[in-house]
Amino acid sequence: MQKWEDVEGNLASARGFRGAAVAAGIKKKRGELDLALLACDAPAATAAGLFTTNLVAAAPVILSRQSLTESRGRCRAVLVNSGNANACTGRKGMQMARESARAAAKLLGLQPAQVLVASTGVIGVPLELGLVTNSLPTLVERLSIENASAVARAIMTTDTFPKSCVLRSEVGGKPVHLAGIAKGSGMIHPRMATLLSFLTTDALIGPRTLFNLLRTAVDASFNRVTVDGDTSTNDTVVALASGVTGVGVRPGNASWAWFLEGLTQLCQTLAKMIATDGEGAKKLVIVEVQGARKPSDAERIARAIANSPLVKTAIAGSDPNWGRIICAAGYSGAIFDPNKVDIRVNDLVLCRDGVDAGFDEASARKELDRKEMTLRLDLHQGRASAHIWTCDLTHDYITINASYRT
Amino acid sequence: MQKWEDVEGNLASARGFRGAAVAAGIKKKRGELDLALLACDAPAATAAGLFTTNLVAAAPVILSRQSLTESRGRCRAVLVNSGNANACTGRKGMQMARESARAAAKLLGLQPAQVLVASTGVIGVPLELGLVTNSLPTLVERLSIENASAVARAIMTTDTFPKSCVLRSEVGGKPVHLAGIAKGSGMIHPRMATLLSFLTTDALIGPRTLFNLLRTAVDASFNRVTVDGDTSTNDTVVALASGVTGVGVRPGNASWAWFLEGLTQLCQTLAKMIATDGEGAKKLVIVEVQGARKPSDAERIARAIANSPLVKTAIAGSDPNWGRIICAAGYSGAIFDPNKVDIRVNDLVLCRDGVDAGFDEASARKELDRKEMTLRLDLHQGRASAHIWTCDLTHDYITINASYRT
Repeated sequence: MQKWEDVEGNLASARGFRGAAVAAGIKKKRGELDLALLACDAPAATAAGLFTTNLVAAAPVILSRQSLTESRGRCRAVLVNSGNANACTGRKGMQMARESARAAAKLLGLQPAQVLVASTGVIGVPLELGLVTNSLPTLVERLSIENASAVARAIMTTDTFPKSCVLRSEVGGKPVHLAGIAKGSGMIHPRMATLLSFLTTDALIGPRTLFNLLRTAVDASFNRVTVDGDTSTNDTVVALASGVTGVGVRPGNASWAWFLEGLTQLCQTLAKMIATDGEGAKKLVIVEVQGARKPSDAERIARAIANSPLVKTAIAGSDPNWGRIICAAGYSGAIFDPNKVDIRVNDLVLCRDGVDAGFDEASARKELDRKEMTLRLDLHQGRASAHIWTCDLTHDYITINASYRT
Repeated sequence: MQKWEDVEGNLASARGFRGAAVAAGIKKKRGELDLALLACDAPAATAAGLFTTNLVAAAPVILSRQSLTESRGRCRAVLVNSGNANACTGRKGMQMARESARAAAKLLGLQPAQVLVASTGVIGVPLELGLVTNSLPTLVERLSIENASAVARAIMTTDTFPKSCVLRSEVGGKPVHLAGIAKGSGMIHPRMATLLSFLTTDALIGPRTLFNLLRTAVDASFNRVTVDGDTSTNDTVVALASGVTGVGVRPGNASWAWFLEGLTQLCQTLAKMIATDGEGAKKLVIVEVQGARKPSDAERIARAIANSPLVKTAIAGSDPNWGRIICAAGYSGAIFDPNKVDIRVNDLVLCRDGVDAGFDEASARKELDRKEMTLRLDLHQGRASAHIWTCDLTHDYITINASYRT
C-alpha cells in the first residue's frame, strides 16, 4: 500500500459520486450558491455520520440520525443547504426536513431514509420547503463529477474560502481516493462544531466499520478545533463509501491502518482549514501540551488555553503575554506544578520553570506575527501530551458576530 | 434592626479603620496611585479571606492564605498594589511579598502574619521590593479616615471607574457600617475572578463566623459575575471586622440574618459594578434562568449563556439572536426539553416553546439597546432558578487585551 498523497480534485474524485449546487434563494444575497446535492451511484454504498452533542439539535440532525439507523447505514445522498440552520423551528422544521429528503429521494430513485440532510445558517427562522423543492429538479439534472466542485462553495456561510482536500493512494495497482469538504468558522468548538463536513471514498467498507473509522478520525481532527467555544445545533460529519474500487477495508486487516491514516490526514487537513478560517482569524494557533501526568490533563490544559479570550486577543496583538497562558493552564482543572512549566512560541522560550525566561521582546513578536504558530507547554510531570488547533481573536470576530442575523 | 441603607463614605466609614494610597511608581504611567494600605486600629479585629481557585496562584495569594491561618484570622491590615500581579515570579516573588508584609507590619506595630497582601496587574514580571518599601513610611503616615477614599482608586487597572459602596444600619440606636471596594474588569469569571475586593465593618464578629458569612455572600455575588471566562491568578476578597461598635454577630442569633443581608447587598452592588465595567463593556446583562429541574441545571445554563462569545457579541450589536441563547443552553450540559423553552429580553418574548415568537424587530432592538437588560429563560421543567451577571463583548475588549502587556 502506498502513502496517501494530496491531489487535485473534488468530492467526486472518489469514484461513484456526483454532485451539484445551485442558488436556491435561501441566502439573502441573490445568486449565491446555497443548496447542494451529493449522490452516490453505487447500490452497495455505505454511510456513517457524527452529529452535534448539543441538546438543542436542528431538524436535519434529528432526521439524519434517524435515517442512518433506519437505512442501516445505506444512505446514498446528502442534501445540504446554507443560509438557514432549520434549528429551533419546531414541528414545521422537522416536516420541512422530512419533505425535502423525500422529494430528493423520489428524483434519485432512492428510499427517503437513504437521503441525509444538513443545514447551516441562522437559527430560529423557518426554512421554506418550496425554495428547496423548486430547485431539486435542476440540482438532480446537473449532478456530475465536474459540478461536484461547487458543493464546497455552496455550504459556506461566514467562511472566507471553500475547504476541500483529495487524497489518493494505490492498492495492488488500483487507485483509491479519499475526498472531503468542510465548512465552519464560528460557533466552532471541540466535540463537533457548526461544522459540516462531507467525506467520500471509493473503498469498500461496511457501515459499522466506516462509523468506527470516522469516529476515530474525527476525534483526532475536528474535535481538536476550537474557535469560540460555542457548540452548534447543526454539526454534521458524514462519510460515504461507494465501494466501486473493490478495495476492501475491514477491521483486523492491514488495510484498516492504511485507510485510517488517510481518513485522519483528510480530516486533519480540513480541521486546520477551519481553524485558519475562524471568524475574523488572522492566525492559526496550534496549542501543544506535553509532559502531563495523564492525557486528560494535557487535553484540559490545551483546551483551556485555546478557549481563553485573553490568550487569543494577546496573540492577535502579537503580545508575548505568557502569563495568560499559564493562568489558563492553572484554571483548567488539571494538576501540575506551576514551578516546572516551560512555555515556548515555536522554538522561542518565553517562560522557564514557571517564571519569565528573559526572552527578547522583538524576537517574540516576530514569532507571534507568523500566520501559523505553535504554543508549546512542557509540564515536566509525565509523558502525556495533547494538541488543539485554534486561532486568534480579533476585531473582525466582533464585527461579524454583532450583526450576523440582521 | 433597621434595613441596610446606602450612604456616602469610604472603607473607613466602618469605624476603627484608616486608609491611604500613594503613587509608588509600580504602574507605568507616572503619578498614578498604585499602592494602598488599609489598617484597623482595634486590637480585637478579625479577618477572613477567599482566594482564587486557579492552581497558578500569585505570591500574595499564597502568602495571605498562610497569614490568615497563622494569625488565626487576626489580620489587621491589607497592603495592596496595582500594576504588577507578582504572579509567576517564583521564589523571588514570594520573598518580595513576605518582605513587604514584614516591612508594613513593623511600621504598624503588628506581627507580619497580621498584614495581608494583594496584587493585581501584569503576570510574570518581577515586582521590585524597593518601590513598595520606599513608599511605606509615607503610606503609614498618611493613614486616615479621609485618605481611605483613595484606596478604591489605587487598586484599579483597566477599570474605568472606582467601585465602592457603604451601607449603614442601626441596632438599638447604635449605627453599624458595612463598607467595600472592588476592582476587576478583565479575567473575570465566576468562582473568583481578577477581582480584588476589600470589605470592612465595625460589627463584632469572630473570625470563623466572618469567614462563613463572607463565603455565603461571595457565592451570591462575586461568584455570579463573568466577563470573559478567565479565572485569574490573583483573586482576593478580604473582610475585616473592627468590632468597635460592640454589636455582635453570631450564628443562631437574630443579627446573623441581618448582617448577612447587608454583606450580600454590599457584595452584590460591587459585583454588578464589576460586570458593568467589564473590559470594553457597554451593557450590563443579567441572565436569569427559571423553571429548571434542579439548581445546578439552572446555573449551568446561565453560565453557558453568559460565557458565550456569540451571545455577547450579538448583544453588543443589539441583535435579538435568541437562537444563540438556546444553543448555549443546549451545550451547557443541563437536561431540558428544547420545545418548552421561552426566552425574553426584559419583558419582550423572543422565543416561545422553542420557536420564534414572531416578535417585533424594532421593539427587540430597543430592549437590547438599554444599558442594563435581563435575558430570561423559562424552561418550564421545574422550580429551580439561577442568575449570572455579565456584559456584552465589544471591539474595545479586543483593543484593551491585544496589547495589555506592552
